Amino acid sequence: MEEKGCKREEVISLLSGYRSEDLHHDHILSSMCTIPHEIAVSVHEMFSGTNLGDPGLFPGTTQIEDRLVHSLGELMHHPKAGGYATSGGTESNLQAIRIAKKLKPGIINPNIVVPASAHFSFDKTCDMLGLEMRTVPYGKNYTVDCDKMAEMTDKNTIAVAGIAGTTEYGMIDDIERIGRIALENDLFFHVDAAFGGMVIPFLPNPAPFDFEVPGVSSISLDPHKMGMSTIPCGCLLLREPEQFGTLNVDTPYLTVKKECTLAGTRPGADVAGAYAVIKLLGREGFRSVVAGCMENTRRLIEGMEAFGYVRAVDPVMNVATFGDGSVPKGWVVSHTRFGHLRFVVMPHVTRDVVENFLADVAKIN
Amino acid sequence: MEEKGCKREEVISLLSGYRSEDLHHDHILSSMCTIPHEIAVSVHEMFSGTNLGDPGLFPGTTQIEDRLVHSLGELMHHPKAGGYATSGGTESNLQAIRIAKKLKPGIINPNIVVPASAHFSFDKTCDMLGLEMRTVPYGKNYTVDCDKMAEMTDKNTIAVAGIAGTTEYGMIDDIERIGRIALENDLFFHVDAAFGGMVIPFLPNPAPFDFEVPGVSSISLDPHKMGMSTIPCGCLLLREPEQFGTLNVDTPYLTVKKECTLAGTRPGADVAGAYAVIKLLGREGFRSVVAGCMENTRRLIEGMEAFGYVRAVDPVMNVATFGDGSVPKGWVVSHTRFGHLRFVVMPHVTRDVVENFLADVAKIN
Repeated sequence: MEEKGCKREEVISLLSGYRSEDLHHDHILSSMCTIPHEIAVSVHEMFSGTNLGDPGLFPGTTQIEDRLVHSLGELMHHPKAGGYATSGGTESNLQAIRIAKKLKPGIINPNIVVPASAHFSFDKTCDMLGLEMRTVPYGKNYTVDCDKMAEMTDKNTIAVAGIAGTTEYGMIDDIERIGRIALENDLFFHVDAAFGGMVIPFLPNPAPFDFEVPGVSSISLDPHKMGMSTIPCGCLLLREPEQFGTLNVDTPYLTVKKECTLAGTRPGADVAGAYAVIKLLGREGFRSVVAGCMENTRRLIEGMEAFGYVRAVDPVMNVATFGDGSVPKGWVVSHTRFGHLRFVVMPHVTRDVVENFLADVAKIN
Repeated sequence: MEEKGCKREEVISLLSGYRSEDLHHDHILSSMCTIPHEIAVSVHEMFSGTNLGDPGLFPGTTQIEDRLVHSLGELMHHPKAGGYATSGGTESNLQAIRIAKKLKPGIINPNIVVPASAHFSFDKTCDMLGLEMRTVPYGKNYTVDCDKMAEMTDKNTIAVAGIAGTTEYGMIDDIERIGRIALENDLFFHVDAAFGGMVIPFLPNPAPFDFEVPGVSSISLDPHKMGMSTIPCGCLLLREPEQFGTLNVDTPYLTVKKECTLAGTRPGADVAGAYAVIKLLGREGFRSVVAGCMENTRRLIEGMEAFGYVRAVDPVMNVATFGDGSVPKGWVVSHTRFGHLRFVVMPHVTRDVVENFLADVAKIN
């Protein structure tokens, strides 16, 4: 740290220079985050400085968090769900599995049984909590093989997980079937819908994946992905809110006496922004956003196939994957663990972006 | 979630209403967070949408994180420290202790030895990681009893901690002495300077508490406290950066192949804001901010003692504590575990705020 400060305009100029080195979103085809909605950005400023970790100081912002949780609980078919705004899917997954572990104390070598498609936050979770992670292979269409999942659970299993919107292929596991496995074996069942939670409800005739499925205990869904909020804003929902009590620690000198969250200080601004987007768009607005993303996903697949790229799977969500092949310079795509080309068609990947990309693909084919 | 969206002005009006229910910072005397610096708020908007969890997409923002870490490393007398921007002190403490655990594998019943003043994030950490938490009683002036700390370590101890700026009394443990205990017993030594890290270096003749003390392995310090950034922005620094590798997980489909952080998606905007404040103020600017906070702390103590309240301790930092007594309505103060009245004199607690408070105290005494 330097002794002397700089002039304000020098600082802004320095940081603008760095910002200009970042890639433009209109060439990012690999991310599950997007450009935040303008109302989220505006509202962020109104709430900067608010701390949900000390709710007695910010009772207004705390009510917004409650309303966000309630809205997302309604969306997940369980208005009485309990929940809180997390820093994102990793914290949500970690906290859900922590609760599952607390609910089954006394197991010496506990394990969780998760799909091969599970996000690497499950690796972190098992590492921290000292759990064996049993990874169930893929079945058809890159969803989990439920027969194998049932076989792989045993008396030391504390939880199973299903993915509603896999990171790599945008697929949805058979949540109803996993729900039956969970109920038959008295297991906590966490649904990781960090990506899909704000997409699937807005698709035509979606497969059941949320609390309407018997056996689902908890759901992770991230406003900072398809909810177009600023980063960070995730959400963990529990069917039985009182289970959060298993995580309580004493919090002297705050305006609350207990807390069950992972972080202490928690931003209110991102949460207010997430709620603003939900209020502004409503279900009909999100349906329109998702319809646009799906339309652009179809256009991308059709366009790529015209150049000889072959789709890896028919995606349920706004992710497109193809057998390997090169892509034009200047565009960021990613690869799955199986080496497939992978595109995430987020709201910033507009029809124009798709057409610009396809025009560049034409030049190299 | 409702079917129809609302008009933009309705959403803004609704949220403004909630915001107005929050307390004003000019009556909050209990918080370690403050009103973010205006440059942090401005810069936040420029960087909204950036995600440090996918650094290849945001190489400019990633460089800012590197510069922030470097600046704070310099401040902590170790420019070659490694580090990253966390969601706050809880994540920093958790990650430091995770590393300590990784560095001493094979211990069956591992424990950590921490001061009684340790923040409740250590409780969460031990709960998650399956560690025994040994709590060392207070010695003089609400700092840890180092003789007892030495006695309480044993062959199963994986780490000791010291607090530089205790949450409740604003005191600094004898970091040099704990450093010797750590070196003699080959222990990882984490310094929790979440609050003090951006105060102590700017005090006249501060006690050594950072990497200049032999034996200190890691430091937590939070720009979102006395660094006046937006929330969330913490920082974890390691003397030996390669130790972060113990936490690596594979990250398919991102622009990096490994990551050691807790979260996946990580906000760039708050980090850019934190760096902007550091560049704008420099050491001389922070010295001036801290001098103002300390001056106001002294004025508060002097004013309160004039009304018969008795200071609990002579604070090293901008925290004032008093034997019990009532405070005027409309002001938020807190209480320590020992029942002392506690005030945190953050930058928003200006001289005017202190005088307004004392004027109200006069009315009830």
